[in-house]
Amino acid sequence: MRADALAAALGARLDGRPELELRGVAGLADAGPAELSFLANPRYRRQLRATGAGAVLLRSAPPAAERPGATLLLIDDPYAAFAKAAALLHPMAWPAPGVHPAAVVHPSAKVDGATVEALAFVGPGAVVGPGSWLEPGAVVAAGARVGAHCRLMAHSVVAAGCRLGDRVWLNPGAVVGGEGFGFAPTAAGHQKVPQLGVAEVEDDVEIGVHSAVDRAALPRQRTRVGAGSRLDNFVQVGHGAEVGPHNLLVAYSGLAGSARTGRGVVLAAKAAVMGHLEVGDGARLGAASLLLRDAQPGEALAGVPAVPHAAWLAQAAAAPTLHEELRALKARVAALEAAAPRPEPR
Amino acid sequence: MRADALAAALGARLDGRPELELRGVAGLADAGPAELSFLANPRYRRQLRATGAGAVLLRSAPPAAERPGATLLLIDDPYAAFAKAAALLHPMAWPAPGVHPAAVVHPSAKVDGATVEALAFVGPGAVVGPGSWLEPGAVVAAGARVGAHCRLMAHSVVAAGCRLGDRVWLNPGAVVGGEGFGFAPTAAGHQKVPQLGVAEVEDDVEIGVHSAVDRAALPRQRTRVGAGSRLDNFVQVGHGAEVGPHNLLVAYSGLAGSARTGRGVVLAAKAAVMGHLEVGDGARLGAASLLLRDAQPGEALAGVPAVPHAAWLAQAAAAPTLHEELRALKARVAALEAAAPRPEPR
Amino acid sequence: MRADALAAALGARLDGRPELELRGVAGLADAGPAELSFLANPRYRRQLRATGAGAVLLRSAPPAAERPGATLLLIDDPYAAFAKAAALLHPMAWPAPGVHPAAVVHPSAKVDGATVEALAFVGPGAVVGPGSWLEPGAVVAAGARVGAHCRLMAHSVVAAGCRLGDRVWLNPGAVVGGEGFGFAPTAAGHQKVPQLGVAEVEDDVEIGVHSAVDRAALPRQRTRVGAGSRLDNFVQVGHGAEVGPHNLLVAYSGLAGSARTGRGVVLAAKAAVMGHLEVGDGARLGAASLLLRDAQPGEALAGVPAVPHAAWLAQAAAAPTLHEELRALKARVAALEAAAPRPEPR
Repeated sequence: MRADALAAALGARLDGRPELELRGVAGLADAGPAELSFLANPRYRRQLRATGAGAVLLRSAPPAAERPGATLLLIDDPYAAFAKAAALLHPMAWPAPGVHPAAVVHPSAKVDGATVEALAFVGPGAVVGPGSWLEPGAVVAAGARVGAHCRLMAHSVVAAGCRLGDRVWLNPGAVVGGEGFGFAPTAAGHQKVPQLGVAEVEDDVEIGVHSAVDRAALPRQRTRVGAGSRLDNFVQVGHGAEVGPHNLLVAYSGLAGSARTGRGVVLAAKAAVMGHLEVGDGARLGAASLLLRDAQPGEALAGVPAVPHAAWLAQAAAAPTLHEELRALKARVAALEAAAPRPEPR
Repeated sequence: MRADALAAALGARLDGRPELELRGVAGLADAGPAELSFLANPRYRRQLRATGAGAVLLRSAPPAAERPGATLLLIDDPYAAFAKAAALLHPMAWPAPGVHPAAVVHPSAKVDGATVEALAFVGPGAVVGPGSWLEPGAVVAAGARVGAHCRLMAHSVVAAGCRLGDRVWLNPGAVVGGEGFGFAPTAAGHQKVPQLGVAEVEDDVEIGVHSAVDRAALPRQRTRVGAGSRLDNFVQVGHGAEVGPHNLLVAYSGLAGSARTGRGVVLAAKAAVMGHLEVGDGARLGAASLLLRDAQPGEALAGVPAVPHAAWLAQAAAAPTLHEELRALKARVAALEAAAPRPEPR
Repeated sequence: MRADALAAALGARLDGRPELELRGVAGLADAGPAELSFLANPRYRRQLRATGAGAVLLRSAPPAAERPGATLLLIDDPYAAFAKAAALLHPMAWPAPGVHPAAVVHPSAKVDGATVEALAFVGPGAVVGPGSWLEPGAVVAAGARVGAHCRLMAHSVVAAGCRLGDRVWLNPGAVVGGEGFGFAPTAAGHQKVPQLGVAEVEDDVEIGVHSAVDRAALPRQRTRVGAGSRLDNFVQVGHGAEVGPHNLLVAYSGLAGSARTGRGVVLAAKAAVMGHLEVGDGARLGAASLLLRDAQPGEALAGVPAVPHAAWLAQAAAAPTLHEELRALKARVAALEAAAPRPEPR
């Protein structure tokens, strides 16, 4: 692909050789003359000048002294442009449709136009849409529905009656539709609450390795992951919870049962939302935070329990020395008390 | 099922139509005239009046103005009663016994009366009890024993020599008997300590998606999960640890090696018990807490490191403003010092 | 094995019966007269005197009054010696090479000298080295390479193009080569960044149940786990991250994308290293800590955010009473202010 065609496709301004042929992408330190790289994180700025890349996506041209030999593609968001360029230059190989003889597809299931690899399983009444790809060990259980152009990697599971939209990507071991954690404490022990609902994942969602979206407890209810959301590894979406559209749930983050997030919410790594809470559109929870109250739209929160992010930063910065400062202040107060006139006895 | 029969089965007092036919359960917002719903969490009280449910389980009759049209079933613990009702009205479909031709069962294994689905595996010398159900990808390894009426969902694993009691339910990907994390640091690196014991899960336990109960390190020893305990997703029970009976271990919580919990312990989400510690009967650890000392029976603890829950609450409430209060107090002390008579030089 | 031969093999000093025959290892409380036990953790010292073990590894001979009947094997590091002794007395049974008829091995794959159990999968062009052992459900995807004498337990996955060195042990469900979590936020949603690199695990690494080592984002780059490192359950190594040699990563700990650790680093349970950070050789992160800056070689850090371990200990010890101490001090300052002469108005 020529640099000028790529720049046009990305909406970038080209500063250099329009006729340059680009065959792939690579990191600044690795890229060769037929490869495109990018600079987005200032941490890697010093790699820019020495790069052997044929072209580099970046925000603005560097000063002449730091300018690499590469053709520059200037754009406001070089990382997003790089993502698009990588998809253009490295189109994903998708296998031809067909059912491997060592796959197990129930006669009542529909898998027309899908790829079902060896040792994958499709249960009775299940439907797998055209262009979808089931890798070895993928399980689509009885009555489950998988849309078109999904990828179910090794050992991912869509449990009975659960649903995936189109272009959903399940990483290895991701489970949609495990049992919700519903138990009522009684004198005789924890009585299981039958989990009678389903789990549903909307279009264009990716779910990371081993992440778990539990089925809802109640009939006709569903646990939901909204369109375009991206879940990292080890993420949990509890029973009856709803993840809004275009959320980012980073590794080990999760929602307890019946919690809900709005549109464009971000849970950083290990952030947890307790049960039945609401997280407003665009709210952000910091890493390792624990949300114990509703979050308003646009709020940025952090800490255990979560408080406004700025307050958490100030608190965290002060915390390590607080006890020493307090001790020093106590000594000053004691000195003042020693010097002060005795108050009259009451 | 008639409302009066259901009320009798649950021990509830009926206030309404005894002859009402109930065919299932549903949430307050969804339920129809032949369905039973419940109100336990006050958060959902406003849904009560408008519900279309034929009957509702709740603690006490609402004031006349808020009373729904539904028949009321009054009981002290409506959530536990709902759990029982749901099990009565939605009896679980259990497959007929038999071994699918695409299952792999070693000739020396015993699986009489069990259901072994396609792509499940039962190794040499393993025993699976009557009425147990192995879903696709379930693995019962060499010499392992699974009791009666267990359900091993997709890709759950009972590793070599490990044991499940009766009515144990493993969610997708749950692993009983992975290697314990035992390594002795030496000059040449971390020397592996062979993990020679087993893991054992007692009767009536449910284990969540991807949770891991590691095997014990020492021969004749076992990691144990006590009868009636309920483990959520991503729970770890380290090697040689013992979870007592009727524990609740919420998502991402866990015990490190050789830790022990008593009866009826609750670990909230992400709570962690460090190695070799003891947690007494009925103790409770708060979400995201880290236990670094033994917990006494009945103690409620929270925080990192865990302290009594009330102390943690007070500390957490004060923490965000503590540094500002200290700064303000410093200013007041400085003003006092400026106004105070100079102490004589020593 | 005779006690004197074992002592010689371990480098221990024998105090007792050289001719004693030892047939296995066991815990102090369980061991019989033909078994070797050990005492390393002082918590178990009281079990020493009553032990029925034929021999015990320990640091130094106890006082005569506490001395058990056992032969003593005295050595500086009894736990490491026990690990070696256990491996000598309980040599691991390794299955004979061969491919089970219910395994699926692509004709273009090479598995000479390996054991491939039923329901394991080896994809096109993959290579599995001699002496390696694939348990049921193990997946070695297209073009992946597994070295010699590896053990891939049930449902572990080596994704396309990824590599394991020699003697690597993957616990059940461990995944090497899941998709990295790479998404660029755009107005139209989170644009996926194609994950074009691989993941590579060097020699003598063990990876725990369900742990995930994601593939790198960029072509020719790799996520790496260094030789001799030991990863517990639920550990994440993000895309492009590098775990140095001989690290210990305890349960639920992990590195975000492009983070790097040096040699001999320890991440305690639930410790997290944020993206692009560097952790120097021998640094240690405490349990449940969150690293937000680089860690210097040898640093011991703890807390959220992580601070030097000693500072964290002092802070944690003071924290529960800090707000009460501050309140008390405020009262003393108020008393001083009430007693003090009014400052002149400015």
